[in-house]
Amino acid sequence: MSRLLDYIQEHQIQKIAILCDERVWQHYPDYFQLLNGVAEVHYISLEAIEANKDIKSIVFGWNFLLEQKFDRNSLLIGWGGGTICDLGGMLAATFKRGIRLVNVPTTLLAMIDAAHGGKNGIDLQHQKNVIGTFYLPEKVIIDTNFLKTLPKKELLNGFAELIKYALIGNITLWEEMQKLIQINHKTIKNEWIDEAIQFKMKLIEKDFYDNGVRQILNFGHTVGHAIERLFAEKKRPVSHGYAVAMGICYETYLSYKQEYITLDEVEEILRFILRFYKPLSLTNSDITYLAHYCFDDKKNKNGRLNFVSLEKIGKTTFV
Amino acid sequence: MSRLLDYIQEHQIQKIAILCDERVWQHYPDYFQLLNGVAEVHYISLEAIEANKDIKSIVFGWNFLLEQKFDRNSLLIGWGGGTICDLGGMLAATFKRGIRLVNVPTTLLAMIDAAHGGKNGIDLQHQKNVIGTFYLPEKVIIDTNFLKTLPKKELLNGFAELIKYALIGNITLWEEMQKLIQINHKTIKNEWIDEAIQFKMKLIEKDFYDNGVRQILNFGHTVGHAIERLFAEKKRPVSHGYAVAMGICYETYLSYKQEYITLDEVEEILRFILRFYKPLSLTNSDITYLAHYCFDDKKNKNGRLNFVSLEKIGKTTFV
Repeated sequence: MSRLLDYIQEHQIQKIAILCDERVWQHYPDYFQLLNGVAEVHYISLEAIEANKDIKSIVFGWNFLLEQKFDRNSLLIGWGGGTICDLGGMLAATFKRGIRLVNVPTTLLAMIDAAHGGKNGIDLQHQKNVIGTFYLPEKVIIDTNFLKTLPKKELLNGFAELIKYALIGNITLWEEMQKLIQINHKTIKNEWIDEAIQFKMKLIEKDFYDNGVRQILNFGHTVGHAIERLFAEKKRPVSHGYAVAMGICYETYLSYKQEYITLDEVEEILRFILRFYKPLSLTNSDITYLAHYCFDDKKNKNGRLNFVSLEKIGKTTFV
Repeated sequence: MSRLLDYIQEHQIQKIAILCDERVWQHYPDYFQLLNGVAEVHYISLEAIEANKDIKSIVFGWNFLLEQKFDRNSLLIGWGGGTICDLGGMLAATFKRGIRLVNVPTTLLAMIDAAHGGKNGIDLQHQKNVIGTFYLPEKVIIDTNFLKTLPKKELLNGFAELIKYALIGNITLWEEMQKLIQINHKTIKNEWIDEAIQFKMKLIEKDFYDNGVRQILNFGHTVGHAIERLFAEKKRPVSHGYAVAMGICYETYLSYKQEYITLDEVEEILRFILRFYKPLSLTNSDITYLAHYCFDDKKNKNGRLNFVSLEKIGKTTFV
């Protein structure tokens, strides 16, 4: 919090809007108390669900910021999970062509993923994040105390991304994680979170606009997003983390089929993932839809499918 | 057109959407005929009026591009005046976090201003361009043949920006322009257009995000935008160029009041501008509103008013 105060004073920020998940606000109503008196503080609270990740929420935010006379030196704080980071990023990027943005992620997933790197997005026609921009937050404040009140399901959501980071670039992290039996805020180590963030930040420095090496972060996500969309359309939505965990399983298998990874490694990966996530059963028709949805992926160019393949545990190849 | 064809082939672009002003399409229905067969070409035609510069037009565009399965290698061409450049920029910047963008401006104003530099925008609550992003077009194609069918009022619209460029940075251009008696597509020289573009591009290279030297391009615009807003709210809208011409008059006078420019220069500038634009009469209440609106300007920070002042003809100071 002192880092945030310094930042606000250094830049003489006078107006702050905190875009927050209403559940987070209920848990920690006094979290930003220190800001009172330092700046004019407003809260924009919303139910942080996928259905609200749409242009209506953004327009609501635009009108609010305009009425409160926010200017380019004003600050938007995104305080919540991935949905809040996505909405807050889009809002800050587009209001007056960009105002200051700080993320204070409260979920494991947002701490290691959505809060960093400047990708934001809203959904359109049930397609996730098809609208959005690249817009970096000026600061991301990680406070793992939030994990204490995070539901198990949300921890699992973020854990899928940790698995991904280990698989695509950190065999030491993978080996350490193997000892895990249970997932809770004590067993997920702060160092793992730091390592995942640093790995992501390195890729972003090299390839901010996601035209090259950054795309390895999408391992598990091409199929993962398709799974999310399929079950959303069936009105039986699955969590992002669960979809990514299953996406990793399928894309690991595809890597094996393309003769990258060995069958032993496939088994090792699937065994580990299925320790924490229940297997997904798909009908033939589901699989047809999934294949179809993979082609709608943002990463594709000229209708060609782009996949990230595992060469071995800890190393990827972009196909 | 051959430059555009080369660009499309070089990047293997398969899908193109041409966002256009319906009046331009009616004048030049075959303009992009050469693209047929080279790529899949769609037209998104709209009435390019200020009232359509809103989020509804953007959402319409998003849905269209999504349904036509546009991807990041697809191209949006903005073909029209400033309204089209603003809408097309915002649309290209936000669809799938950015697709390719080329501007083909058809008005004098867009040729020297809106088509370049990557500022885009839509209006909210009658406030111009308060929503938008910074997103550079990959190419801008200048074809001054379009000026032949451009109404006089539109030429005057762009001419106000030419006056601005001369005043803020090009005394030679200013002196050449003094010989002008009449404004039409023959008396506006192509070299003037080129010089204005080059001047703007140099500033943008130095200061893309408009935090410093680029702001001198706003000379005449703080008051100009306030005039536009005032008359829009009175339901007697004035054109952007007319508002800027009058804004230049007022900001020139303010520069004199701040002891920058001399009274002789003020007279020289006002005499020239009033040769082409009729003077603006304002009531006391109008002036109060104008002052108030100037404070809403996007360029202000922490409620302090930022003005660009003329030091002398051809040179500015940022206050």
